[in-house]
Amino acid sequence: MTEAEKAGGAPSKWVFTFGDGRADGSVEDKDLLGGKGAYLAEMSRIGLPVPPGFTISSEVCAVYYELGRKLPDELKPMVDAALDAVGQIAGARFGDVDDPLLVSVRSGSRASMPGMMDTVLNLGLNDQTVEGLARRTADRRFAYDTYRRFIQMYADVVLGIDHGLFEEILENYKNLKGFELDPELAADDWAEIVTRYKAVVERELERPFPQDLHEQLWGAIAAVFGSWQNARAIAYRRLHDIPDDWGTAVTIQTMVFGNRGNNSATGVVFTRNPSTGANELYGEFLLNAQGEDVVAGLRTPQPLTEADSGASGNGKQSFEALLPEAFAELKRSCAALEKRFRDIQDIEFTVQEGKLFMLQTRAGKRSTQAALKIAVDMADEGLISREEAVLSLNANQLDQLLHPTLDPKAEMTVLAKGLPASPGAASGELVFAADEAVHLKAQGHTVILARVETSPEDVQGMHAAVGILTTRGGMTEPRRRRRPRMGRPCVVGAAAVHIDPEREILEAAGMQLRKGDIVTIDGSTGKIMKGRVTMREPDLSPDFTTLMGWADGFRRLRIRANADTPDDARQARAFGAEGIGLCRTEHMFFEESRILAMREMILAENSEGRRKALAKLLSSQRQDFIELFEIMAGLPVTIRLLDPPLHEFLPHGEDTIAAVADAMGVSLTHLKRRIAVLSEFNPMLGQRGARLLVSYPEIVEMQARAIFEAAIETGKALHDRVTPEIMVPLVSVKAELDIVKERIAATARAVEKERETSVAFQVGTMVELPRACLMAGEIGRSAEFFSFGTNDLTQTTFGLSRDDAGRFLSEYADKGIIPHDPFVTLDEAVGELMQIAVERGRATHPDLKIGLCGEHGGDPDTVNFCEKIALTYVSCSPYRVPVARLAAAQATLKNAALTDN
Amino acid sequence: MTEAEKAGGAPSKWVFTFGDGRADGSVEDKDLLGGKGAYLAEMSRIGLPVPPGFTISSEVCAVYYELGRKLPDELKPMVDAALDAVGQIAGARFGDVDDPLLVSVRSGSRASMPGMMDTVLNLGLNDQTVEGLARRTADRRFAYDTYRRFIQMYADVVLGIDHGLFEEILENYKNLKGFELDPELAADDWAEIVTRYKAVVERELERPFPQDLHEQLWGAIAAVFGSWQNARAIAYRRLHDIPDDWGTAVTIQTMVFGNRGNNSATGVVFTRNPSTGANELYGEFLLNAQGEDVVAGLRTPQPLTEADSGASGNGKQSFEALLPEAFAELKRSCAALEKRFRDIQDIEFTVQEGKLFMLQTRAGKRSTQAALKIAVDMADEGLISREEAVLSLNANQLDQLLHPTLDPKAEMTVLAKGLPASPGAASGELVFAADEAVHLKAQGHTVILARVETSPEDVQGMHAAVGILTTRGGMTEPRRRRRPRMGRPCVVGAAAVHIDPEREILEAAGMQLRKGDIVTIDGSTGKIMKGRVTMREPDLSPDFTTLMGWADGFRRLRIRANADTPDDARQARAFGAEGIGLCRTEHMFFEESRILAMREMILAENSEGRRKALAKLLSSQRQDFIELFEIMAGLPVTIRLLDPPLHEFLPHGEDTIAAVADAMGVSLTHLKRRIAVLSEFNPMLGQRGARLLVSYPEIVEMQARAIFEAAIETGKALHDRVTPEIMVPLVSVKAELDIVKERIAATARAVEKERETSVAFQVGTMVELPRACLMAGEIGRSAEFFSFGTNDLTQTTFGLSRDDAGRFLSEYADKGIIPHDPFVTLDEAVGELMQIAVERGRATHPDLKIGLCGEHGGDPDTVNFCEKIALTYVSCSPYRVPVARLAAAQATLKNAALTDN
Repeated sequence: MTEAEKAGGAPSKWVFTFGDGRADGSVEDKDLLGGKGAYLAEMSRIGLPVPPGFTISSEVCAVYYELGRKLPDELKPMVDAALDAVGQIAGARFGDVDDPLLVSVRSGSRASMPGMMDTVLNLGLNDQTVEGLARRTADRRFAYDTYRRFIQMYADVVLGIDHGLFEEILENYKNLKGFELDPELAADDWAEIVTRYKAVVERELERPFPQDLHEQLWGAIAAVFGSWQNARAIAYRRLHDIPDDWGTAVTIQTMVFGNRGNNSATGVVFTRNPSTGANELYGEFLLNAQGEDVVAGLRTPQPLTEADSGASGNGKQSFEALLPEAFAELKRSCAALEKRFRDIQDIEFTVQEGKLFMLQTRAGKRSTQAALKIAVDMADEGLISREEAVLSLNANQLDQLLHPTLDPKAEMTVLAKGLPASPGAASGELVFAADEAVHLKAQGHTVILARVETSPEDVQGMHAAVGILTTRGGMTEPRRRRRPRMGRPCVVGAAAVHIDPEREILEAAGMQLRKGDIVTIDGSTGKIMKGRVTMREPDLSPDFTTLMGWADGFRRLRIRANADTPDDARQARAFGAEGIGLCRTEHMFFEESRILAMREMILAENSEGRRKALAKLLSSQRQDFIELFEIMAGLPVTIRLLDPPLHEFLPHGEDTIAAVADAMGVSLTHLKRRIAVLSEFNPMLGQRGARLLVSYPEIVEMQARAIFEAAIETGKALHDRVTPEIMVPLVSVKAELDIVKERIAATARAVEKERETSVAFQVGTMVELPRACLMAGEIGRSAEFFSFGTNDLTQTTFGLSRDDAGRFLSEYADKGIIPHDPFVTLDEAVGELMQIAVERGRATHPDLKIGLCGEHGGDPDTVNFCEKIALTYVSCSPYRVPVARLAAAQATLKNAALTDN
Repeated sequence: MTEAEKAGGAPSKWVFTFGDGRADGSVEDKDLLGGKGAYLAEMSRIGLPVPPGFTISSEVCAVYYELGRKLPDELKPMVDAALDAVGQIAGARFGDVDDPLLVSVRSGSRASMPGMMDTVLNLGLNDQTVEGLARRTADRRFAYDTYRRFIQMYADVVLGIDHGLFEEILENYKNLKGFELDPELAADDWAEIVTRYKAVVERELERPFPQDLHEQLWGAIAAVFGSWQNARAIAYRRLHDIPDDWGTAVTIQTMVFGNRGNNSATGVVFTRNPSTGANELYGEFLLNAQGEDVVAGLRTPQPLTEADSGASGNGKQSFEALLPEAFAELKRSCAALEKRFRDIQDIEFTVQEGKLFMLQTRAGKRSTQAALKIAVDMADEGLISREEAVLSLNANQLDQLLHPTLDPKAEMTVLAKGLPASPGAASGELVFAADEAVHLKAQGHTVILARVETSPEDVQGMHAAVGILTTRGGMTEPRRRRRPRMGRPCVVGAAAVHIDPEREILEAAGMQLRKGDIVTIDGSTGKIMKGRVTMREPDLSPDFTTLMGWADGFRRLRIRANADTPDDARQARAFGAEGIGLCRTEHMFFEESRILAMREMILAENSEGRRKALAKLLSSQRQDFIELFEIMAGLPVTIRLLDPPLHEFLPHGEDTIAAVADAMGVSLTHLKRRIAVLSEFNPMLGQRGARLLVSYPEIVEMQARAIFEAAIETGKALHDRVTPEIMVPLVSVKAELDIVKERIAATARAVEKERETSVAFQVGTMVELPRACLMAGEIGRSAEFFSFGTNDLTQTTFGLSRDDAGRFLSEYADKGIIPHDPFVTLDEAVGELMQIAVERGRATHPDLKIGLCGEHGGDPDTVNFCEKIALTYVSCSPYRVPVARLAAAQATLKNAALTDN
């Protein structure tokens, strides 16, 4: 058995050549050849001017590690044969002392990992071939410059010698000779530098710099494979979820030189403008330079096109003007590449003595705005289909367009980073108390409310503030009662910030901010910044509208919004929501005018007392619903009955309790005892949702009545019947739903009789407990719809309180214990429970309408999962509606593609 | 179509006759014939003297209700035919004016519902046949006495006339005539009474008492079917989970008379003593009386046997002495019945003019003690197999034998009823504070600790008390930290009790008790009583030992105990536990000498500080384990690493906090801030279990070290290797287990090196979260065992905090929303999750050891479920170990029987 066979590798085809209009592989072979190798092969196939070369497949990378970081012997003859083939195309020979072939040795993995792994350029030079190169090019200076570049890079990458030693030598030499810039050095200077470089290598390694060109090549290949496991690359892979076992390929390619005089150049080009998406070449170049010179930043690149040159106004000549033939060829190549790859390309090229060479191409990164324009343009140009246009976008990135955002060029002093809880950015004066926020807003101030945590008393202040910042609270969203969804930027769990509400001081990053100091928060990234940071308003282009229109045409899933207020509802409609999937009613009772009646209800001794107190809330509650029904004009509205435990409506803190007792005319002792009786060890698992509604049916009656009366009134105004969907939260047992449902139906009968008209409505349930998922077959018999509450379902499936998890969830993510925050990306076990619920629910109730209304509704991966398990709709925050619309369209297209195959 | 066919009933065989050594049905036909009819048929079959009769099947009951409470016409000819057949056997004819056949009409359902439904006796008399009866019996007084009995009963049951009217007539007549007792009335007197009775009926109904015997019979049959839906019967069925659709059968049987003179009698007999289980006839009888006379209680029954007669010493003559032939026949019949039914029988009999008739038999109710003796005796007698002996017992009832119990005859003043949380009864002086309990115990007092709720500071006091009573807390067990399992009687959530700890007063049932007043609590029923109530010590008979031995021989499931202390462990072994399935380590840190170091650990600024504090706990923790290992001598011991969140170890309440800050030499502010930082909204779902151990690996190190060092030391002493099982709680993700496991392994390597010896151990995990169940395939790869924590699994599956659920769980049970308390009887959804976990865990780890260590481990239904899903063991509180052993044996036998069929 050969070594490779022992290591489990089959020495089949390991080496793939390309060049001269042909190639062994194609762009389909990214897994084997890496992105670079696959694209080079494809470019060669379609006849673009590619320097010939070959790629050693990523399979060899696995063998290399299995052999304990050793290249298999079988590889050698394959590489030699490939070198010969390449030399024949290039018209030179590796190691030929008269006309040596020089090559680059580069990494290339399936996923782009720019700059993470090693590269060796100009390989193929030793003391003999450098002279041959000098002779053949008739340019000794070029030959020795190239040789010294090679030695430095090889010593660094392959031999592990600190490149600082070489830079020092060059600096010293230039100082000694009085040179400032490299071009001042002549051929002999570079020859002298080469001598000194070789001496350093010999001193450091106690052996001379290798003169055997095959040894050089072998070393370089091994080094590139070895760099797959360098610390940088490992860290990058962790960050981007790239599996360790993919490995890298190694591409060996004939060197071409952009530094062979003023008819040579090196540059980069995007086939379209990556910022705006405009259909124009966009790039820059350096005349008479190698690619590294661009990176080194010593010279300022010149504009590529005449248009750019004119626009920049700095008088630099364009590539188009200087090398018109090469430019024309480049333009043709760009068009050919877009046609082939049907996407914007990011290209590296070199012109050697007037001749254009394409060195690399890959899909171009672009701004979200550009992505939209490119997708729409390419579809209009017939380059791609509308389906492909829709699929080409990253749904998550759309979010960037939908909120005011920080100007990326703005200066900013970041104080700390918390958890991004509600996207968008906002600046305002710091306040530490809710009533202060209300007070200041009334005076026309713009405030950011900073709290250790928020409580029901803070709701008015939260409404008054343009942004909210807390030092406690879980990822993505603080606990239910602590932040009614208000479409305000929100950063929570900023543990590095210390807030002292009594002294009205915020401390972070060694700085102290006081009340009235301006801060900016970015709810999309969790950043907290000192002072005001420049913002950009969202600007939805016609391309956005066009593309969303296409997406809507493909989409199967309906998209609704979670909206509690008229503002939310209007925003939701503006963003294309097809209904309200979740209207939480609890926040409606936190308003100052209402919480008193709510507290009276809670403190009442009996059902009669509760009914009396609730009666005071009826008209305002009805008005809430009338507004929502009017705004949604015929679109479905799902209203969730009261969910939080009653103690959340009672005051906290000695002073507040005393004040409330006073205001309500009850004794302090009585109020305190009631608070104590209602307090819970684990409110998340306490008497809330259906449990509350079963025990306090008066609440159901009041809310159902408000809903029905509002539906009748709005229906008359709209000349259209309003059919509200009433949702019962936290059901774990079918009987809970039945009891509440019967109470709703009884109320409907009463209202129908009083108003002498009929009402239409549906009653469904949140599915947010593991038991509800498992018992969905039973519960489904009584429900007209299900709506997955994935927040609570995640909490109970994990046994994890989102409010308390902030403390260790970030540690868990850091340590790789969990791959994703399960409150952002649906966990697989939670998904399995949902799937069980869908199957069982529809088994007993085949046309059961099933939606999702947790925060996950705005996550594209979750939307895709919802499509797969055939939900009816997803509901998310208004600002995520476009994201969900696009993600749903993509999900339909992707899943149809899966089914078709 | 006939009426019955319209109603869906097939008029197949509806009437089943018995008598004269034959019968249409048998004891197998209880569903159709009801218990009474089936046993009568069987008695007839085996040749016992049964008055002939027939049974109308329970199918007719369904038809009766489907027809709107009407008997189907098809039934009539069947009944007539049966009456003829019965008359031929009895030698009389229904309606024969010379020798009329009299019958009884009784109910009989599949399940025994004694006294719930209606009965009519002596049917077949009218003004003509009564004379025939008088002539044939030559006893006119008997005939008219029987007629008046019939009229009164029929009027009451069938015609709905208040029986008080008839009693009034009899009383008035007796007063008028100066009679005291019924025997003083002569034939003419009874004839006069009959006349007056008939007049009442005619007055009330405005029509005469029916003289048509078939009309009488028809009415009686309908009345018995109708009584299936009377309020009593419905209530009884609710209480005993008897389905409404079972219906009742109706048995019509020839009357025999125990009131035909001094060679006639009526009586009841148990084939064995139902209190002691002794193999002796046990019963009583009345001479010259009808069965109702026994019920009426006018005459004192006489003893059945000579032995009893002698023992009672009241000189009453025994049945054995008075009617020796009938007694001999009865004795033979009893033996025949035990042989046939292989169980103790509860029999009604009548002797008519010297001849014995068996009227009814059924399985006899017996005390737990008697059940044990009967099972063992019958197996020894060869009457039943040992398997049947084991299966004959109610495992739950065993519990009664294992604790000191209230003397059922004791006088008691019940103050209130709470939730039974830990069985057994205890009396003691009331104390309201933990330190007071410790103080008083030191002075030799016996105390009951009464608290609103318990907290970690109370642990010493809980240890000092003989019983614990709280007014808050959930069913079956207060929250984890609030009651370390201490084998003490415990009543929780006694909401009707008001405790004022400051004034040291307990109020309940309008009474006030003060500190030092004696109370008794019964942790098996939840009762709280004033004063001392007489107790009985548990007395385990040799029968118990014999039967448990047989059970152990049949059992497949291993039984372990949840034991945290040496006392628990000793008790567990005494009750036959085969290891410790759950040793919770947290209570070990609540002891006064240790909690200080624990708090130092929590307040430490860094890992170094934590290590230092934990080091102080090492030796005592090691000692804890040495004791356990010694007691368990070679049996497996599963130790759970620290589970509760750290804040549970910190003080609560201003004063305590100040005192602790003082004692620890830290500032009050510092301590308060730390308490605030660690406090959690939902501690149940917070940073506990594996989450804590991942963040604070020093705790794992200290505990693992204590375990390993204890195992080495004990191993040396026992000359046997100790292999502890280390359990990681609250795992939801495999990586959590891996991280803790690696830390345990590293500690093992360190200890091995220091001690120059090897240690053996296993690492497993609690499976107590829905996610852990669903991901069991993955987690199972890393675990050497699983142990279901069904308490937490129930909490998370339902999204229900046991501590907070007390408030509404009882309401839920009352309203029938949940069929059982899911913290007592395993919920079906929780069971499904367990089954998923077993399947997936064993799929990746085929020999995975899987146990259960929640409170459910002592519940026989749960044990049966654990057998079905092939768990390895169940672990329960020490006092439940015998229950679990028996339940496990029954489960094995039952499931084997299922498999065999």
